[in-house]
Formats: sequence, C-alpha cells, structure tokens
Amino acid sequence: MQAVKIETHSKIVFIGAGNLATHLSQAFLKAGYGISQVYSRTNSSAQQLARILNSRYTSRIEEVERDADIYVIALSDKAIVPIINELQLKSGILLHTAGSISMDVLKSYTPHYGVFYPLQTFSKERDVDFSQIPICVEASDSSLLDALLYMGRRMSEKVYEINSEQRKQLHLSAVFVCNFTNHMYSIGYELLKNKGLDFDLLRPLILETAFKVKEMEPMRAQTGPAIRFDKQIIKKQEAQLQYYPMFQKLYRFVSDSICRLHSARENEDK
Amino acid sequence: MQAVKIETHSKIVFIGAGNLATHLSQAFLKAGYGISQVYSRTNSSAQQLARILNSRYTSRIEEVERDADIYVIALSDKAIVPIINELQLKSGILLHTAGSISMDVLKSYTPHYGVFYPLQTFSKERDVDFSQIPICVEASDSSLLDALLYMGRRMSEKVYEINSEQRKQLHLSAVFVCNFTNHMYSIGYELLKNKGLDFDLLRPLILETAFKVKEMEPMRAQTGPAIRFDKQIIKKQEAQLQYYPMFQKLYRFVSDSICRLHSARENEDK
Repeated sequence: MQAVKIETHSKIVFIGAGNLATHLSQAFLKAGYGISQVYSRTNSSAQQLARILNSRYTSRIEEVERDADIYVIALSDKAIVPIINELQLKSGILLHTAGSISMDVLKSYTPHYGVFYPLQTFSKERDVDFSQIPICVEASDSSLLDALLYMGRRMSEKVYEINSEQRKQLHLSAVFVCNFTNHMYSIGYELLKNKGLDFDLLRPLILETAFKVKEMEPMRAQTGPAIRFDKQIIKKQEAQLQYYPMFQKLYRFVSDSICRLHSARENEDK
Repeated sequence: MQAVKIETHSKIVFIGAGNLATHLSQAFLKAGYGISQVYSRTNSSAQQLARILNSRYTSRIEEVERDADIYVIALSDKAIVPIINELQLKSGILLHTAGSISMDVLKSYTPHYGVFYPLQTFSKERDVDFSQIPICVEASDSSLLDALLYMGRRMSEKVYEINSEQRKQLHLSAVFVCNFTNHMYSIGYELLKNKGLDFDLLRPLILETAFKVKEMEPMRAQTGPAIRFDKQIIKKQEAQLQYYPMFQKLYRFVSDSICRLHSARENEDK
C-alpha cells in the first residue's frame, strides 16, 4: 500500500460548519493547510465559514467535491453515520472528529480513514488557543497515523495516539468535567439570582477551583462539608434546598458520592 | 454607643490555624494589621502559623489574651459555637469567618460582633491573590459595619455587605460550584486512570470550562449530550458506566437535571 501523505497543498473538504468545524478549520488554516470547500446542510452557515476560510461552499450533498485528498467530518455524533452514507466516497482520507464514535464506522468507504479529535469545549463567540488543546488521533494504518500525528503537531503541542475505546472513556470523562461542571455553575447562578446576589461573587472561586487541579490530583483538592463528613451542615443545606427539589436530590446524591469515593480510596490506601 | 475603630495597631487574636486562618491572617498582615496571638487546639499548628505571623501562640484556651481589640474565629463551622462558649469573652470585637453560620451565634458575648467571610477555597500549599477574593461582611451595628468594610477594602477590591441569609445561600452555591465541581474532576480522573490515560488530557478542558463563565452566563455556556437531548449518546454513556454504579446513577441524574433546568428556562422565556 502506498504511503499516505498530508501536505499543505492537499485538497481538504470540511463537512460541517458548527462550533467544532469553525474552530478546527481555522486551526487547519493557521497551520498552513488550505480548505477547498465547506459543506453544511444550512447554506448560510456554510457560506459564513467559507468566508472566513476563503473557500468554496455548498449545502447540496451532491455538490461536495469528489476529488479531495481529505474529508473532515466535523458534525455532532449522531449526524456522522448518515452523512457518510449520503456522501458515498470512494477515495480520499476520511476523518471524523467525534469523541464517542468508534473509528470503525468509517471503514468500507475509503481505503484510509481515521479520527482527529480535539478535546475541548468550543463556542463560536470565544477564541481558543489551539496549541494547548489535546488532539487525539487514531488511524486505519500506520502510514496515516504518522501523517495525522505530524499534522496534529503543526496545530498543537499535545498530540496523542488514542484508540476508540480510550477515546470513548475520554469523552465520557469530558462530560463530567465540562458539561456536568458547567451545570454546577448554572445551579450556583440560579441560587444566587433567587437572593438578588450577583454571579460575580462566585467567579473567583470557580477559577481557583479549576486552577487547583492544574497541579494537584482532584481527590487531594476536595474541600467542603461532604469530605469533612460534616452531617450537621449537610442536613442544614439540604433543608435550605426545600423549594428546589431537583437541586436538593442532586445535593444529597453528590455529597453521598463524595463520601463514598473518598472512603473507597482510603480503604485502598490501607 | 462609641464608634468602633479598627486600626493597624489594634490588638488582633486569631482563633484557628487551619487553611482559612493561615491565608486570612497573612492577608491581615499584608494589609498592615499585626497579629498579636494565634490560638489552636493543636500546639504545633499554632506555633507554625505564629512563626509566619511573628506573633505569640497558645494551645490553651485560658491563655488566650483577654484584652485584644478583635478576635477572629477562623475555624470549621461546627467548631465555632463551642469555642465561643469556652472563650467567654466580655470585650473586644468578635468576628467569625464562616459561610453557613448566622451572625446571631455571636451575640450576647461582646457588644460588637460581625462576620468577615472571604469566599474562596484555601489550601495550605497554594498561594492566593487576596485582592481578587470577594469578602462578605456583616456587623452588629453600622459603626462596626463601616470599620469592617474599610478593613476589607485594604485586603481586597471586592468587599460586599451580605446578610446572614444571603451568606448562607452563597455558601450553598459555593458547595455546588467548588466542592461538587471538584468531585466531577475526581470522577474524570478515576475514569481515565482506569483506561491508563493521563489526567493532563482533561486539564485544558477544565480550565476553558471555568474561563467560559468569566463572561458568559453558565446556562448559555452549556454544551454536551444532555443539553442537545441526544438520547442515543446518553444511553451509550450510561451503559459504559455499568461497572461504576455510583457514577452511573450520578450521570443519569445530572443529565436529567440539565434537561429539566433548560426546559424550565425555555418555558419561562416563552
């Protein structure tokens, strides 16, 4: 089999124009790779991203360029398989960028396929420093793997070879540390709003909580009533949440989870 | 009643030598206030902090100086009332520093009493920039309130007058955004460890998640399967947690809470 090469003049098509596609395609551009075409079901989204990338665009699947070297599928997880079936590609390198989708969904289309998964939370309104974003790559063959590692390193200092099973676990962990964490922020926000207090009061605490685990193991950084097994405060705070039954149940449940996880760890250490 | 004054030469006694006492007493020092004495039940802790502060110390309650102008009780919540009863102070300003304890527990001892609550998570091994920490003050009378606001502003740019009920809510919110968030980090750590993956993979995501809400409302920053109502992934990730029954229950529960909070908000907006 011929060695796979990805070069800055390779012809690249982006499938998708959402948050991830917007940030990732610009990282490609910054790393020296040109984008030939953007496809999105929504014509205005395709057009908007194409303008940034100085590329062509389309919202018609049959107009996707057939002679590209690389197709980057940057869509939400559930949209990936349907679009690949619609595309019916025969050549080129087929890449997806999703955490929880196995690489295997790409096989039986093109000879080379892989995953290029940047582990970050993207919003259109926020710029991110791609050089610090972990990029997790997986490939159908060692030749493509080398090519993806090389391409990744042009965008980020942190490129890892991660298989599908590990990536799935990584994505699940990301749901906890990002999505669930953000929900904790939302609850804090709601509780303060209810007493006429400004969310600014919590912002330094939120940042410090994140900074702490830059160096420490999170278990060692744990503070609060649950880790001190301070039943008196836990009871009082539970009662305080009587008008928020959902938050109250969550309070009880997470406190319990903190106690159990730390007891389990202590028993292991013995 | 005479106006209350707190001056840099006021005689200040710190009751407690834990994380909070260690950071707060040094913030006093940095702001120009000398600490006369440190009390801790644990002699070595008292000695260690006294060395930093260049103060006297004791581990015997009867040796606590009786003629101080200010007593700062920097102990865990449940230790506050017992120690005040042991101290039996008659004069001086009595302050506590706890989120979930009402100011009223201090009344009937000294004529002036109040709360000086810095909202942050403290660990002995980490320096914090006190100038960015919100300090919440409450006082028995307007004269002490002014004095506490003035003193607070020598330490931090963010000093707020917060009553006991608000402070309780603030502390509860802090449990969600700090303690519970850190537990989410711990779960991420455990899940990665199990697949031989390094927690470093998650650190940029953790920081970005916190940075995002520096400007945005957390509800607007929410991403992930639950907010997209992506039942397919939610089911898969739940199944993935089959060997972690506690995390699985938590996954289901927090995902459900995200859906409900956002549905409630959307209905409000209609």
